[in-house]
Amino acid sequence: MDVGFIGLGHMGLGMARCLLGAGHRLVVYNRTRGKASALAAEGAQVADRPGDACRSDAVITMLADDQAVEDLVFGSGELLSALGSSTVHVSMSTISVALSEKLADAHGQAGQAYLAAPVFGRPDATEAAKLFIMAAGPDAAITQCQPLFDAMGQKTFVVGERQSQANVVKLAGNFLIASVLESLGEALALVRKSDVDAHLFMELLTETLFSAPVYKTYGSIIADERYEPAGFKMALGLKDIRLALAAADAKTVPMPIASLLRDHFLAGVARGEGDSDWSALARLAARNAGL
Amino acid sequence: MDVGFIGLGHMGLGMARCLLGAGHRLVVYNRTRGKASALAAEGAQVADRPGDACRSDAVITMLADDQAVEDLVFGSGELLSALGSSTVHVSMSTISVALSEKLADAHGQAGQAYLAAPVFGRPDATEAAKLFIMAAGPDAAITQCQPLFDAMGQKTFVVGERQSQANVVKLAGNFLIASVLESLGEALALVRKSDVDAHLFMELLTETLFSAPVYKTYGSIIADERYEPAGFKMALGLKDIRLALAAADAKTVPMPIASLLRDHFLAGVARGEGDSDWSALARLAARNAGL
Amino acid sequence: MDVGFIGLGHMGLGMARCLLGAGHRLVVYNRTRGKASALAAEGAQVADRPGDACRSDAVITMLADDQAVEDLVFGSGELLSALGSSTVHVSMSTISVALSEKLADAHGQAGQAYLAAPVFGRPDATEAAKLFIMAAGPDAAITQCQPLFDAMGQKTFVVGERQSQANVVKLAGNFLIASVLESLGEALALVRKSDVDAHLFMELLTETLFSAPVYKTYGSIIADERYEPAGFKMALGLKDIRLALAAADAKTVPMPIASLLRDHFLAGVARGEGDSDWSALARLAARNAGL
Amino acid sequence: MDVGFIGLGHMGLGMARCLLGAGHRLVVYNRTRGKASALAAEGAQVADRPGDACRSDAVITMLADDQAVEDLVFGSGELLSALGSSTVHVSMSTISVALSEKLADAHGQAGQAYLAAPVFGRPDATEAAKLFIMAAGPDAAITQCQPLFDAMGQKTFVVGERQSQANVVKLAGNFLIASVLESLGEALALVRKSDVDAHLFMELLTETLFSAPVYKTYGSIIADERYEPAGFKMALGLKDIRLALAAADAKTVPMPIASLLRDHFLAGVARGEGDSDWSALARLAARNAGL
Repeated sequence: MDVGFIGLGHMGLGMARCLLGAGHRLVVYNRTRGKASALAAEGAQVADRPGDACRSDAVITMLADDQAVEDLVFGSGELLSALGSSTVHVSMSTISVALSEKLADAHGQAGQAYLAAPVFGRPDATEAAKLFIMAAGPDAAITQCQPLFDAMGQKTFVVGERQSQANVVKLAGNFLIASVLESLGEALALVRKSDVDAHLFMELLTETLFSAPVYKTYGSIIADERYEPAGFKMALGLKDIRLALAAADAKTVPMPIASLLRDHFLAGVARGEGDSDWSALARLAARNAGL
Repeated sequence: MDVGFIGLGHMGLGMARCLLGAGHRLVVYNRTRGKASALAAEGAQVADRPGDACRSDAVITMLADDQAVEDLVFGSGELLSALGSSTVHVSMSTISVALSEKLADAHGQAGQAYLAAPVFGRPDATEAAKLFIMAAGPDAAITQCQPLFDAMGQKTFVVGERQSQANVVKLAGNFLIASVLESLGEALALVRKSDVDAHLFMELLTETLFSAPVYKTYGSIIADERYEPAGFKMALGLKDIRLALAAADAKTVPMPIASLLRDHFLAGVARGEGDSDWSALARLAARNAGL
Repeated sequence: MDVGFIGLGHMGLGMARCLLGAGHRLVVYNRTRGKASALAAEGAQVADRPGDACRSDAVITMLADDQAVEDLVFGSGELLSALGSSTVHVSMSTISVALSEKLADAHGQAGQAYLAAPVFGRPDATEAAKLFIMAAGPDAAITQCQPLFDAMGQKTFVVGERQSQANVVKLAGNFLIASVLESLGEALALVRKSDVDAHLFMELLTETLFSAPVYKTYGSIIADERYEPAGFKMALGLKDIRLALAAADAKTVPMPIASLLRDHFLAGVARGEGDSDWSALARLAARNAGL
Repeated sequence: MDVGFIGLGHMGLGMARCLLGAGHRLVVYNRTRGKASALAAEGAQVADRPGDACRSDAVITMLADDQAVEDLVFGSGELLSALGSSTVHVSMSTISVALSEKLADAHGQAGQAYLAAPVFGRPDATEAAKLFIMAAGPDAAITQCQPLFDAMGQKTFVVGERQSQANVVKLAGNFLIASVLESLGEALALVRKSDVDAHLFMELLTETLFSAPVYKTYGSIIADERYEPAGFKMALGLKDIRLALAAADAKTVPMPIASLLRDHFLAGVARGEGDSDWSALARLAARNAGL
């Protein structure tokens, strides 16, 4: 397929490579041109402006936050006006439910197809085409884009016809990961102060009831106290918990653990640890225990 | 081996059966004799008093709470005086760290061997000899009792030489399970109020980052809202969180999520749901969201 | 002085009356004209459009929320363009810090004077000219408006030269009131379940360490369980805690009690109690204790 | 009256002086004899053993914690056996509800009169006979001891006939004070990061809705950041919140703010601040905001 790809950060670069590897034709755009150039050698065409990436079967956007998506679609990026009527906008960024609903409205009024398809996966999973993709939107557009999802992910889950449902699911998932980080931090503070070896404890957990990637990946980081360099920064963790709480507030859903996580992320960022891995929640728990 | 087994409740009965099935000779005792009699037909000898189960290579105790263990060992059960010097007391109950330390002191002064070996596993895992066992105590005693652990469990983890370390690990594990229950409850309240199907959401989680027994078992109960009959009662969940908090308090470890869990369990029990499954934490989260 | 007054709700009506009573000449505007008409009989001139209230020494706005202020100033109300260069805009509404900063920018660019002057006081205090006023902005403008503040309040506190500082102080104050409501609710649940009389307990508190209006006013409501009709609705309490948390988030300040209050207000609103007095936080605490 | 007084610490010494000043005849006992000797010069008779202070109309105990009271009454102090049938035991210490109930049982079985009469007041209020006294127990005993209460306090509140009710009220009161400390700490972190002067903010609060001793006393300490030397140590604050939570747990009452306070006190103690004033909760809030 002919694919536009906008946003070649941490995650986007690997995703674009997967698409190239699967034989799709890519026009890529990145605000900082350097990253786009890297892909030129691998066969991608580099666009000068976002609009040049919009004359394709689909344009995928993978940007840092709401602000970046707003600028691209409604602001100087002019994606909304550049998008053809046969091009699907596939928003794979982790954005707010409110912005996803605004995108659905705007694209709908412009007669354009729009999908939300955020992902689970750390950068290494991205390069290996092992992402999990949560897609929502009109069936026809999902069917049309399935080959792209197959090129980037190991499995696609269709969660509904309203695009923002995929964003809610993504935010709920990130909330669950952060809950694991905090609860592991508290449990480890207790067992470490009881002279139980942290690695032994994590091994015990992940060989029994907690044998899932989220415990294995983060349990190892936390037991090693290896919070730098960050795979996913605490400042971004704070951003995502804010988005989860905003989505919950809009639906009048209290989420006490999410509130607690927001407070702990805020304390981490206020104390200068915003660039550490978000699992450094466990370091805060350890410090509050005098470790 | 010759084994005494005291406490034939929900869990104990299945564990005793596993030992019989592996060819060990059992003398069993239960306060309510009926349950012991059931095992007589399967080859166990039924004791009239706890002391009669103490002339063995090992005596396993699997009781409901601290009070029951205190009564048995220091009170009317007279286990402390009945125990021979070559019999190992293997305490597999979920008890407080403080009581485990008191047992270690008392058995030590009496020249008796003592192990703490609490378990992970719901009743069905017990019958299938699929428990996970966390053992702590002197190496020699653990080696001596390994055949018993092998008969009841699929894997034994030795967590330290100080018995109470196994109790800390067990309580930390139960805290982590309860954290999962609460965070799933909050996440599901959000996705349900966003019209995403609860079963679809749980399937998505357990096929991706959260592919662990704890999410599968409880995710299914919570998505089904099937809280009765209880596999593990909320009143017992409250008891275990109290024990985790007491252990943490003794080591000056703040555990904010554990505090939150205690408050929610208390609200559940105060509202008359103490006999529901402890995963009914998710029902409280749903109700607080107006579901 | 010649004063424009926009917003004749619960609080605004009483404030306008105080100004009239002190001899100031009022031009009043309210979206629903009926309330303005009531003041005509007392000497106020009724404006057809907000702009007609802007040709005065000062125009006071007392509106329900950010949205109403945004509509008035930047939207259809056209206050920004109607305001003369010698007219001070005195915003007395409880609004967000962010909006107050936006107003400061906009008025500054238009060469207009702007004060933020939110208040403490329930409706009965308003009629009696007993408000407490927290003012921030340029000294000259505060001096100019002091006669107005004196007509409405018993005391004015100047908290800084940056207008939004007054809004922060107001939100921090409302957070402190809500903290009192929740903590009284928890304490009363405990003493009531211990068979201590709620009124006796409140009397004991307010005659000793807690002899302040906030404990007297709300302690009496809570001990009486008299949550309807509301003096200040729970839905508004939720709004103000959101604003406090937003201000804190912008400054990277964790406020765990504020987070807890937000969750409890959300639960109250989700359960259909948004129109009860915000002190009905105590009813939630009582219910969670099984009362 | 003839009065025995046991426990001449921080508070007890001042209380004993008030009794002497009012003309009562005192026999005093303190574990460390030095403090008792100081009172000898002022007319008190110094006892060698607690039992020697028990042949009076009333014996007042003012000790540090449950352990000290248990030792005195049931242990080596032998108060239970030394107490005459016409001597009232007036327990003024801040102790657990459970211990107060145990004392009521034991004294009841021994045919002895027992009152619980804990107090509100910092040490300076004690010397000035300005304590507030919360008394519970049989009417006749309260009437008999009223002259003693009048000598030590400015007002006595009778909260019930069951002694432990006075202990619940005292613990609920201390919980409310600690709630004020934490909420002030959070509010001040916000206003300080908004460049509002902390003293100005406290003045504004205490001249308006929060004009109570608890806000004046602690607001001044917190605005000054004057946490050492402690008037009441954080380690004791932790102790009292534990007792409040234990009382609430026994009645199945969730107290989320109390849980949060316990976690923050634990963090303070774990970080080495147990000897600072308990209002140093506000310092933790400031640090978590990066101040």
